[in-house]
Amino acid sequence: MRYTSRVAYAVWEPQMLVVMQSHATEDQVRAVCERIESLGLRAHPIPGAARTAIGITGNRGEVDTGALESMPGVIECIPVSKPYKLVSRDVKEENTVVRVPTPSGEVTFGGKAVGIVAGPCAVESRQQCFAIAERVKAAGTRLFRGGAFKPRTSPYSFQGLCEEGLKILAEVRDRYGLGIVTEAIDNESLDLVEKYADVIQIGARNMQNFSLLKRAGHARKPVLLKRGMSATLDEFLMAAEYVLSEGNYDVILCERGVRTFADHTRNTLDLSVIPAVQRLSHLPIVVDPSHGTGRRNKVLPLSRAAVAVGADGLLVEVHNDPAHALSDGPQSILPDEFDQLIREARAIAAVVGRTLN
Amino acid sequence: MRYTSRVAYAVWEPQMLVVMQSHATEDQVRAVCERIESLGLRAHPIPGAARTAIGITGNRGEVDTGALESMPGVIECIPVSKPYKLVSRDVKEENTVVRVPTPSGEVTFGGKAVGIVAGPCAVESRQQCFAIAERVKAAGTRLFRGGAFKPRTSPYSFQGLCEEGLKILAEVRDRYGLGIVTEAIDNESLDLVEKYADVIQIGARNMQNFSLLKRAGHARKPVLLKRGMSATLDEFLMAAEYVLSEGNYDVILCERGVRTFADHTRNTLDLSVIPAVQRLSHLPIVVDPSHGTGRRNKVLPLSRAAVAVGADGLLVEVHNDPAHALSDGPQSILPDEFDQLIREARAIAAVVGRTLN
Amino acid sequence: MRYTSRVAYAVWEPQMLVVMQSHATEDQVRAVCERIESLGLRAHPIPGAARTAIGITGNRGEVDTGALESMPGVIECIPVSKPYKLVSRDVKEENTVVRVPTPSGEVTFGGKAVGIVAGPCAVESRQQCFAIAERVKAAGTRLFRGGAFKPRTSPYSFQGLCEEGLKILAEVRDRYGLGIVTEAIDNESLDLVEKYADVIQIGARNMQNFSLLKRAGHARKPVLLKRGMSATLDEFLMAAEYVLSEGNYDVILCERGVRTFADHTRNTLDLSVIPAVQRLSHLPIVVDPSHGTGRRNKVLPLSRAAVAVGADGLLVEVHNDPAHALSDGPQSILPDEFDQLIREARAIAAVVGRTLN
Amino acid sequence: MRYTSRVAYAVWEPQMLVVMQSHATEDQVRAVCERIESLGLRAHPIPGAARTAIGITGNRGEVDTGALESMPGVIECIPVSKPYKLVSRDVKEENTVVRVPTPSGEVTFGGKAVGIVAGPCAVESRQQCFAIAERVKAAGTRLFRGGAFKPRTSPYSFQGLCEEGLKILAEVRDRYGLGIVTEAIDNESLDLVEKYADVIQIGARNMQNFSLLKRAGHARKPVLLKRGMSATLDEFLMAAEYVLSEGNYDVILCERGVRTFADHTRNTLDLSVIPAVQRLSHLPIVVDPSHGTGRRNKVLPLSRAAVAVGADGLLVEVHNDPAHALSDGPQSILPDEFDQLIREARAIAAVVGRTLN
Repeated sequence: MRYTSRVAYAVWEPQMLVVMQSHATEDQVRAVCERIESLGLRAHPIPGAARTAIGITGNRGEVDTGALESMPGVIECIPVSKPYKLVSRDVKEENTVVRVPTPSGEVTFGGKAVGIVAGPCAVESRQQCFAIAERVKAAGTRLFRGGAFKPRTSPYSFQGLCEEGLKILAEVRDRYGLGIVTEAIDNESLDLVEKYADVIQIGARNMQNFSLLKRAGHARKPVLLKRGMSATLDEFLMAAEYVLSEGNYDVILCERGVRTFADHTRNTLDLSVIPAVQRLSHLPIVVDPSHGTGRRNKVLPLSRAAVAVGADGLLVEVHNDPAHALSDGPQSILPDEFDQLIREARAIAAVVGRTLN
Repeated sequence: MRYTSRVAYAVWEPQMLVVMQSHATEDQVRAVCERIESLGLRAHPIPGAARTAIGITGNRGEVDTGALESMPGVIECIPVSKPYKLVSRDVKEENTVVRVPTPSGEVTFGGKAVGIVAGPCAVESRQQCFAIAERVKAAGTRLFRGGAFKPRTSPYSFQGLCEEGLKILAEVRDRYGLGIVTEAIDNESLDLVEKYADVIQIGARNMQNFSLLKRAGHARKPVLLKRGMSATLDEFLMAAEYVLSEGNYDVILCERGVRTFADHTRNTLDLSVIPAVQRLSHLPIVVDPSHGTGRRNKVLPLSRAAVAVGADGLLVEVHNDPAHALSDGPQSILPDEFDQLIREARAIAAVVGRTLN
Repeated sequence: MRYTSRVAYAVWEPQMLVVMQSHATEDQVRAVCERIESLGLRAHPIPGAARTAIGITGNRGEVDTGALESMPGVIECIPVSKPYKLVSRDVKEENTVVRVPTPSGEVTFGGKAVGIVAGPCAVESRQQCFAIAERVKAAGTRLFRGGAFKPRTSPYSFQGLCEEGLKILAEVRDRYGLGIVTEAIDNESLDLVEKYADVIQIGARNMQNFSLLKRAGHARKPVLLKRGMSATLDEFLMAAEYVLSEGNYDVILCERGVRTFADHTRNTLDLSVIPAVQRLSHLPIVVDPSHGTGRRNKVLPLSRAAVAVGADGLLVEVHNDPAHALSDGPQSILPDEFDQLIREARAIAAVVGRTLN
Repeated sequence: MRYTSRVAYAVWEPQMLVVMQSHATEDQVRAVCERIESLGLRAHPIPGAARTAIGITGNRGEVDTGALESMPGVIECIPVSKPYKLVSRDVKEENTVVRVPTPSGEVTFGGKAVGIVAGPCAVESRQQCFAIAERVKAAGTRLFRGGAFKPRTSPYSFQGLCEEGLKILAEVRDRYGLGIVTEAIDNESLDLVEKYADVIQIGARNMQNFSLLKRAGHARKPVLLKRGMSATLDEFLMAAEYVLSEGNYDVILCERGVRTFADHTRNTLDLSVIPAVQRLSHLPIVVDPSHGTGRRNKVLPLSRAAVAVGADGLLVEVHNDPAHALSDGPQSILPDEFDQLIREARAIAAVVGRTLN
């Protein structure tokens, strides 16, 4: 068993720190300590030259910081400990290697090799998927992506071919030997995706759809979990924690850009999250430079950067005819550009001691 | 029938503008126009002294801006028109007044009266709900909120009492004559919420859970739709559009703070979105100052500000014992504070020509 | 003397907290403590059931968290204490009331009255200023704003009339009895502004122009300091600390909107910062709804909200002919709208127990 | 002469687009057009199937969008054209190569070679600078950075050695043959920096200190201009435009991270701005991974990513004893780490067809 017993985590212990005003009296400090103890917690005063801070241990849930903050002499309450457990290197120090079997052989995420996933944003037709799959396959890539269920901002936009799309993807697997990565958007579609696909994708808009995360935690296929548009690192890891806590430990994280004031790209690709995740968690993390920038002409440079920063994989949108794509045409690269991307990614992977798979 | 026929909206027409470089040649401008026309669209060149811009009309879906942006002489493509229809004042000029019947009489949102909804974050027990409901009722409020299904960042946090919680809420309605507002987090819980509650709440994390929005569009109860943590105004209105496009026109929007760099509150309450929504849409919009700030001591001042800015209602967390609340204790106000909030809100409502209900 | 002796602040003591991994060994905890002590600081281990955290006291400057974070067993370092002193209620509990003498009587900020400042973005001509001043005066307002030195994003935009503009403002004071608030953008202009104006404004773009802040700290006129576009509350207060630390205690803070992803207004007005500042600092804080929204049709509702939330004043752009304004026309209100703003602000001020001045 | 005559830019022409409501009447469209023409501009109506948009040309300054937005039938006004001129590839298509002579030979930015600048955050002592310079030199780097004037958030933090620091830097140049890059924070310090240094740095907090930018435009040394913490691409380029418009065309842009909600790094390094700048402007752009992340353990991976994405250089903080650094210790790398950075950067530069200098 790779994981330490869950029992240990029953002692779930967020620590808080209460910062007192510099002119807080001893009585005020004592009152705060007593209040903390009355809640069944332990108070640890840390006197400093200018002011006192009070550490809190022993709590198993949320501390009512509102009540503490309204006590005389208190400036603020600062949460200290991290709430995630199973995703943490605290629990499992070595990297998790997620293994995805495909007809052409196993693709791994989190090991030495950088995993590549490529294909159109949406499955539009058999002809379209075959044309793109042929080029993806020719470039040496073994995982094909394509959405059959599309979460679209507008109800009037193309919403995907649904199960018909999954069947086309199954044909792609049979004909080209490619493993399939595709998105589920609710419990119903997850049932279908689990049946047809090799990796179940949870999109950015559903990163905190906890009902869906729990269902994915019972799936027997790896889960590719995209970071929400404004998710902090902690929230991102907690979303993965939902999946692991239900028993599915094969989670691949995916950075796909966050929302900021910057308007020159659709999102701001936050590559620093890659080493940050790798420091705190044993889970692999890949980068989606297509959604991460929203601009075709930024996909290649940011793909190079993603491999250079140490990402465990790339998820790239490729389309043979983006001018007529039913979604995300502006950010899809052409097959020739994808060939170039693979060449550049391979060369950079070599510099950081990795290979491509 | 309040709405113009849907047929009119089949002509869904986003307009784009292609901006050319100042030294773009006539041939380059012509090539871009031809490309646009070849996509079945119309090109409208607008020559300026320094450069030419080209308007695009006639498109019914996404324009492949990636392809246009890679043409010689092009600087960028700018989307122009708004994608929402049914929520827009283009379609319905007068305010929508959402009417919520309660045993104590009708509460309206979008009319002269400012609608108040109050109660605990989570339904914890009958005793807790009754204690709070008594105070909410005594303050003159007729809508009670409380979560039976709780979307929580951590899988180890209290997840709600589920249907048992809904039954307690039904008892609150019977005993205190209060209408019930409670959250649905997936299709299964929405079925139950529709059965027990008077208003179905869709939370911020589910604002782009399109599967859930469509289901809410078939519900026969009003929907209170919270703005996503990083939703633009357009995305917020488009989420409402999903509900309306399925036939449910009774949508109450809710501003509950957005995510920014600012760290003195849990979220940054964006009160300017109230007049912005009211300018573009006929739907009512309320404010949640509890999640909007995450701090008890900010709830009263921001409630006053919300009424002053013109909000159509307030959604407030009230708890009789926040120190022992199972969720969101730090941002819940006490019943006495709620009494004060009502007094202040009423006084400010009067200044802006409104009443409280 | 209103302030406690500066000597007390020589004990400048940021506290840090080092969070250890849950499986950190006792040796690792001891090594971190020794490292802390070797830096001349004190280590305070706080053992918890799941992990240990180590408090640090005694440091007078920055702690090298990089070195600590790279030690075995360490997860992260969290800064605890607040770096500001003179601006803090730690040092001075009661509100600072900044008094601005004008020919028509004293205007105060931070007392019972809400201070109003109004006028054009830029001083364009004597005629323009007189026309606006007449209306501002007629509305009962005693402080006139208008920029003679304009920080403009583009070098090709109107940069202000400079000293000529200050002379026009001096004429406004003489003729209409209005006090003058105007911006300084560098040390040279500050010398002139100090000579001509009654309040020296430091703009958002210069909030961390520390050279200018120090110069303002030697001025003998009150300083109106605008929050930077992406300044945290701590940075905002630290900028004020620069001015106070040089001896000028008459600082009025000003919230003018922050930069976020939201695109329906030019900036996102962060009204929750008003009660947050008032909790931590004794300095008065006013709101600029004109820059805070960038849209004329948002100025009135947000002005009402600002007074309702408890702001100590308003800074409003008024123009008699915004269609021909040389800057910020789109966000200036007309004199008639200003009359309405004053009526509404007065009514709301009464609700929160204040008056207008 | 590299630049087209300035005369051409006198025709300074922002274009606007006014979007009408779908049910706007012909009279309303006509009224808007007449209003536009009455302002001395030209109106270009673009009728669409669903609504009309009206292009505006001919304006030389700001258009009063406030007035237009308040006209019946108008939804909003969208600015179209870019305000920068001299920095744009519109004006100069080929890359600008900024050449910095050093005693060890010329270093270039914007050509084939990736320029490296390394050294401590602050000049603390001759001994410290010599120790670091020796290692920087040994790694083959020819430009040394170190701050003599330090913009610090707190007035109680170390503010730099000022001219004494510049003299130490001059000794570093003499003894080690290194060119010097150091920051100016106001006009006075710029005079000194211009005298002692080879490149004048303008920091992020001063990116819109227009007084300082104009002064830098008269300097006879290249300027390294850092992106402001929340500067859009347009604002960043406009800040450079200030320097060029005063006659100094040797500007090196620098991405150093922007402020977002993400809290795992001090700033969010926005690497997508590199290809975005290179598309719009001929100026070189470098990356500062030290400020861009604020964490020592992120500097190497993000340096690799910066070279991979196509940056024209790196600006790195190196310290021989970061535990005792007077500023920015937590983000400075050690000399051995810098050696590794250089090896990795060189290998990645080779992949993208570049060298290191």
